[in-house]
Amino acid sequence: MEKSRKIILGIDPGTLLMGYCIIHVEGQAIQMKEMNVLRLHSRLDNYTRLQHIYNKVDELIRLFRPNCFAIEAPFFGKNVQSMLKLGRAQGVAIAAAIGAGVQVCEYSPRKIKQSITGNGNADKEQVWKMLQQIIAIEDATIKYLDASDALAVAVCHHFQDNTILNGRSTKATSWKQFIEKNPQRLRVK
Amino acid sequence: MEKSRKIILGIDPGTLLMGYCIIHVEGQAIQMKEMNVLRLHSRLDNYTRLQHIYNKVDELIRLFRPNCFAIEAPFFGKNVQSMLKLGRAQGVAIAAAIGAGVQVCEYSPRKIKQSITGNGNADKEQVWKMLQQIIAIEDATIKYLDASDALAVAVCHHFQDNTILNGRSTKATSWKQFIEKNPQRLRVK
Repeated sequence: MEKSRKIILGIDPGTLLMGYCIIHVEGQAIQMKEMNVLRLHSRLDNYTRLQHIYNKVDELIRLFRPNCFAIEAPFFGKNVQSMLKLGRAQGVAIAAAIGAGVQVCEYSPRKIKQSITGNGNADKEQVWKMLQQIIAIEDATIKYLDASDALAVAVCHHFQDNTILNGRSTKATSWKQFIEKNPQRLRVK
Repeated sequence: MEKSRKIILGIDPGTLLMGYCIIHVEGQAIQMKEMNVLRLHSRLDNYTRLQHIYNKVDELIRLFRPNCFAIEAPFFGKNVQSMLKLGRAQGVAIAAAIGAGVQVCEYSPRKIKQSITGNGNADKEQVWKMLQQIIAIEDATIKYLDASDALAVAVCHHFQDNTILNGRSTKATSWKQFIEKNPQRLRVK
């Protein structure tokens, strides 16, 4: 059987920070090609920040030619003004993908945590630790921690995509499938 | 003195309707070239609707090559989920302009009403009636009324731009300048 190959761009767009990451997937092997944060200084006007987001996503798509753009559906806050700004930031990032004809997939924070750790209520640190076990990340600096949500959504998309490809329901827990195939990666505390 | 020429794309992006209009401005003459509404059916998924918005704005920019993209800053609602959706719709439209290198300008609803009617609290009908006097619109059907916010923001941008070009403060009421030059257009009820 030929191994499936795919390139996934994970994006976590915020109004002051945008986390991004590129993973290459070949069969069960996940390789992290790029992972970083675009800082959007609060002194910049809103429009300039949107421009930076668009340019960065556009650049990543041109450089890495991903098959899919995966984004986290936001957890709703209380402030309508912040939600509008967040929506704009997301819209601009999504549009860069649409413009380049890249498929857009969206996952809820709960779905992402469930998919990575097996627990929909896991905290950021737990998700990050599990990601470091799934993918060999040597330089686990704080720079990466900021971008870990982007990596999480990209890996979540890979698991979901596999579930769909295997002809199983999307409700199947990909995490279970993962540990069945990789029991050595499970550490019981 | 050479007359200034410009093409303005006015956009009023919503989650179910997107009003758009193109005006050509030469000196003081405003010509309406295109004005319509893109309907985004509620049965479509969110991503398909964003794609339709992006494609329409992109098409308008390619067809008319505007110098400026003018958008209305939204009036904040109470529902965070709606604001996020609205923000995404706006972000996608803004990104189409950014991608094509078109300048983006944003005006508050109050600023637009003030600029067109001289009253920041004018209602939609009053703004529309004034627009019909400023620009010769023969076919004032309901189709156009839906898109009137897009025309209003485009005309507002023209007035603001003129104010800036004339070296006056942006706080100057362009409406005053307009009636000084076009007294015949003022009707006292």
